[in-house]
Amino acid sequence: MTETQKPRIGISMGDPAGVGPELCAQLLNIEEILNICTPVVFGDHRVIAIAAEKCGYPFDAQKLDVGQLYPTDTPLEGPAVMHVPTLEDNWNRPGTVCEQTGRASFDYVKTAIDGALCGEVKAVVTAPINKEAWQAAGIKYPGHTELFAERTECERFCMMMTSPLFSCSLVTTHVGYHEVPGLLSSNRISEVIQLTHAALQRIYDKPDPSLVALGLNPHAGEQGLFGNREEEAIIVPAIEDARQAGIEVAGPLPPDTAFIPRLRESTDGYICMYHDQGLIPFKALSFDTGVNVTLGLPMVRTSVDHGTALDIAWQGRADVSSLVSAIRLAVKLAD
Amino acid sequence: MTETQKPRIGISMGDPAGVGPELCAQLLNIEEILNICTPVVFGDHRVIAIAAEKCGYPFDAQKLDVGQLYPTDTPLEGPAVMHVPTLEDNWNRPGTVCEQTGRASFDYVKTAIDGALCGEVKAVVTAPINKEAWQAAGIKYPGHTELFAERTECERFCMMMTSPLFSCSLVTTHVGYHEVPGLLSSNRISEVIQLTHAALQRIYDKPDPSLVALGLNPHAGEQGLFGNREEEAIIVPAIEDARQAGIEVAGPLPPDTAFIPRLRESTDGYICMYHDQGLIPFKALSFDTGVNVTLGLPMVRTSVDHGTALDIAWQGRADVSSLVSAIRLAVKLAD
Repeated sequence: MTETQKPRIGISMGDPAGVGPELCAQLLNIEEILNICTPVVFGDHRVIAIAAEKCGYPFDAQKLDVGQLYPTDTPLEGPAVMHVPTLEDNWNRPGTVCEQTGRASFDYVKTAIDGALCGEVKAVVTAPINKEAWQAAGIKYPGHTELFAERTECERFCMMMTSPLFSCSLVTTHVGYHEVPGLLSSNRISEVIQLTHAALQRIYDKPDPSLVALGLNPHAGEQGLFGNREEEAIIVPAIEDARQAGIEVAGPLPPDTAFIPRLRESTDGYICMYHDQGLIPFKALSFDTGVNVTLGLPMVRTSVDHGTALDIAWQGRADVSSLVSAIRLAVKLAD
Repeated sequence: MTETQKPRIGISMGDPAGVGPELCAQLLNIEEILNICTPVVFGDHRVIAIAAEKCGYPFDAQKLDVGQLYPTDTPLEGPAVMHVPTLEDNWNRPGTVCEQTGRASFDYVKTAIDGALCGEVKAVVTAPINKEAWQAAGIKYPGHTELFAERTECERFCMMMTSPLFSCSLVTTHVGYHEVPGLLSSNRISEVIQLTHAALQRIYDKPDPSLVALGLNPHAGEQGLFGNREEEAIIVPAIEDARQAGIEVAGPLPPDTAFIPRLRESTDGYICMYHDQGLIPFKALSFDTGVNVTLGLPMVRTSVDHGTALDIAWQGRADVSSLVSAIRLAVKLAD
């Protein structure tokens, strides 16, 4: 396949002090990845070279400067690193947290998003950033997702975790436990159902992926015995809305039994009301095969399912499989 | 082993219209069970006989009337059914819900509890009741656990699910999602830690079972970023109290990563803040091997991990393995 036939996938390098640089170096040596896409890393060419050498990975990707990448109908010769020159020239401190690395990893993501908006890459795959470093750099976003949403002016989006076993989408995400009931609305749940249905059609290659919505309360409220009847008042109307739009959603199901093997096997996507309702079973069951996808953006965005792992940075011990899964999925969705 | 050397275990038959009667009949034919204990079913002798015949299970257990069972130092000749005559003599309606069956299953449990309090049996294992039938009969208890607590005048108890994989104890149980934060206190969490530690010493035969307490909020609050700092204000002091009492508890851990395989393998017991935080991963991973135990009671009480299954009642399709696990554990704890 020539470059024009393969999608060009942007990969933000993540925090330079974490495992991101060595994962990018590993990635550019994986034949499967080079066969399905042309990877363009948005990060620091010099840092990847140093990390690669420390870990013993070959690294000879071409270096591009900002402004040297053109829309994807202009072929690239092979994998490339778009060098974003935020770090000082002599920076070399794996395993640390500081303002400079926070600013740098933010710039890598921002440049990659802009590249996707301009058509230079077809998707953005994000390596992990360090939230503490972002805070040190005065960056207000709690994480990647909110930055993508704001920079692409997107108001209708949701976070989904997906694996070959099952997927789960979150109606609410990074908020305190007590805030969840006040954030649930039928409109929001309908939105998540529709985004999830559309994404799973592509991910699992099914015209009609099977969806399940969970209740909020133990036993889904047991006919009003527990909770404030959020199931009847908020979740059921959203399921009915979806049905009007031609999407069948089962539920609201009792959350504790929804993930037993028999139900999981017949379910493609779970609509979960809060972060841990979805992520506890997802990580327990799909711990090393999960990919985080942001649905609803005007571009494809996937992410690894792990953190910066500062304690093992630049030692050649980081596992590239989550990044590979995230790229595979980005290629599939960008198609 | 003669009867005097084996513990006598009370089993409440559960809802007569459900799978309880046939499970009791199956049980009395299992050699392993008869080798480790003398089972005494508290239920309806006639109903078990009819269900057993329909399912093709042999049944010839002796019938005792209330008042005919004496403390466990007076041997029984073999398994027995303590006949509690609540049902009408001609009742025969598997698969239905009614006031009469609700009242009957309540009387079976109550008689079994009284039997344990009098020393007639060493433990009570409960087959499933139907909450709707209890409500129809005007019974105020939301479930077994509350009845055991009140009838034994116990104020310090908790529900734990246990399996060979791991165990989890619940700080709060059958309450609405929104009520949980208001019900958390350091005292209550300390209590659950202590009850769990003592129980797991026996269950896993370890002097120092490894315990993990979960946070309430996503990422355990991420240093106050999400939630009302319940982790620092309520959970950490409980962990410190436990340490003072010589019990090591890790945490509060981010709930979503606490159940990944690496952590699960090194954890015996999870202290969970709410029903679904513990039961979602427990049922996803231990779906057919779980036993429900009530800790803190003045007697041993275990329970099956399934419902009445009215739709398959008296058809010979019910699986006795959960009841067998519950009895094995009761024998171990009663020892």
